[in-house]
Amino acid sequence: MVNEPERIAVSLTLGALLEVSSWPKPGNVHRTRDFDDTRFEHFLASAVAAQPVLREVAEMATRGERVPLGRYLYEAVRHSMSAHTGGNTNLGILLLDVLLASALARASLDPSDVRREALKLAKETEERDAYYLYRAIRLAGAGGMRRIRGSRAPDVSRPEDVLEKGITMYEALQAAAHRDAVAEDWVRGLERSLRIGLRVIELREEYDINEAVVRTFLEELATRPDTLIWRKHGFRVALRVSEAAQEILRIAGDRPVTETRALYELDRELHEDGINPGSTADLLAAGVGYACYLGMRP
Amino acid sequence: MVNEPERIAVSLTLGALLEVSSWPKPGNVHRTRDFDDTRFEHFLASAVAAQPVLREVAEMATRGERVPLGRYLYEAVRHSMSAHTGGNTNLGILLLDVLLASALARASLDPSDVRREALKLAKETEERDAYYLYRAIRLAGAGGMRRIRGSRAPDVSRPEDVLEKGITMYEALQAAAHRDAVAEDWVRGLERSLRIGLRVIELREEYDINEAVVRTFLEELATRPDTLIWRKHGFRVALRVSEAAQEILRIAGDRPVTETRALYELDRELHEDGINPGSTADLLAAGVGYACYLGMRP
Repeated sequence: MVNEPERIAVSLTLGALLEVSSWPKPGNVHRTRDFDDTRFEHFLASAVAAQPVLREVAEMATRGERVPLGRYLYEAVRHSMSAHTGGNTNLGILLLDVLLASALARASLDPSDVRREALKLAKETEERDAYYLYRAIRLAGAGGMRRIRGSRAPDVSRPEDVLEKGITMYEALQAAAHRDAVAEDWVRGLERSLRIGLRVIELREEYDINEAVVRTFLEELATRPDTLIWRKHGFRVALRVSEAAQEILRIAGDRPVTETRALYELDRELHEDGINPGSTADLLAAGVGYACYLGMRP
Repeated sequence: MVNEPERIAVSLTLGALLEVSSWPKPGNVHRTRDFDDTRFEHFLASAVAAQPVLREVAEMATRGERVPLGRYLYEAVRHSMSAHTGGNTNLGILLLDVLLASALARASLDPSDVRREALKLAKETEERDAYYLYRAIRLAGAGGMRRIRGSRAPDVSRPEDVLEKGITMYEALQAAAHRDAVAEDWVRGLERSLRIGLRVIELREEYDINEAVVRTFLEELATRPDTLIWRKHGFRVALRVSEAAQEILRIAGDRPVTETRALYELDRELHEDGINPGSTADLLAAGVGYACYLGMRP
């Protein structure tokens, strides 16, 4: 009763749910932390509302049809936004997941094969995809995305300009890649998301699901400053958060990081200061979805 | 891109997610409480895994085909169980939701119309449905369900006996109705689940989503002793829990119950004693799903 496209959609949806549920994931919405405009429940509603769109994407890709990635991103965001009363919950996740769903439908289980397909699909995007990308960004009201400047890509507040300038979705995201880890991963064929997925699987063998996801998050944060923090608060702040993540991993050693006091303190501190490592969380959601697709179970 | 059967499946899935996420829902798994064998994440995985099955059920019902309710219940439970490593998460919810999905696909938005369709569908079930019901119960390893005795319905450990005895799914659940609120609601055309849904919508106008769901839960518990507690711990214990729920509602008045200390104390107490108002939670999940279908948003 559940076919392959369905299995892809279920896995990616679960990835988003497990990501937002892992706690305390410092600075992000999680089980005991809401933002002013966006609650934990809004993330649940968003993930579930996008599932049918991801399934349709996977179905088209399975049939060998060209998937209009921009259009489906827009549709997924539209369904998500209308399923709750909060702000942007999953633009970044869906940007990754729409591409991932298409690539999984065409590739083998091997990550390098998935990456190759993702890259091919990304490069096949057209002006029309960029137009819908811009509309999706506007609809979500995503933080700090307006300022894709100093490039050929026009201001995101004017989707129609994209059509005139003849910029593809790949080009638009490439222009944003230096300041947005999600855009960067998209134009690189999801390399980082896929690697994150494999790491979650590895950690899941040793730890419970919550620890596996939180620990992966900290490892990512420790290695690369979060680009959402960077855009909103500057590089120094992003670097400081990465150092804090490193410190928690050092303190914990092999013990679960979720059992260290330092993790709860960092979570409290980031929430008080309104510092949100949201780009890293988006990559994590896609990565956990890939892990679920490969058979990891909570 | 999202048609009516899809919308039904999304709504019922979200209902299950919002139910398990509402907290502190005393005695149940919720955001900060796991059971020994079943974690919060297992409920997330279960809900998402069942979504494609619910969609298929709604599609068949929309086309006017007879939905094999027992078979689909079994399939939904099978997908749910294989999506995580824990114990029974959603047998009760799926029993209600498979029927609800079918009824919603055929009825208007009016609850009495939904109830009429649900009752009709329940009464049309056959021996084969009962056979799969028993298999679903066995697969889920549901608590205390073995003892449907003193009736024509055979022991649930022997699904094949059902076929010999010529008992329909409706008759089997009718035999269990006096000691299982979920079975009772099923044979009554989901009357209580639907009423719960309307109450959640009403409370949502005044309160945030979490308070609306937790408060509805307490109101139900206060009015009717939970049948899972009754089966496992006896009537006196079930009654005592209902009285505790009444007391919290009295203490809170119009203030959110989730802001009373008494609620957190009851949650702690029930968890320490292993007392789980699981039947009430199942009805709530279906009710919240109906509320989402009617347009309630978190």
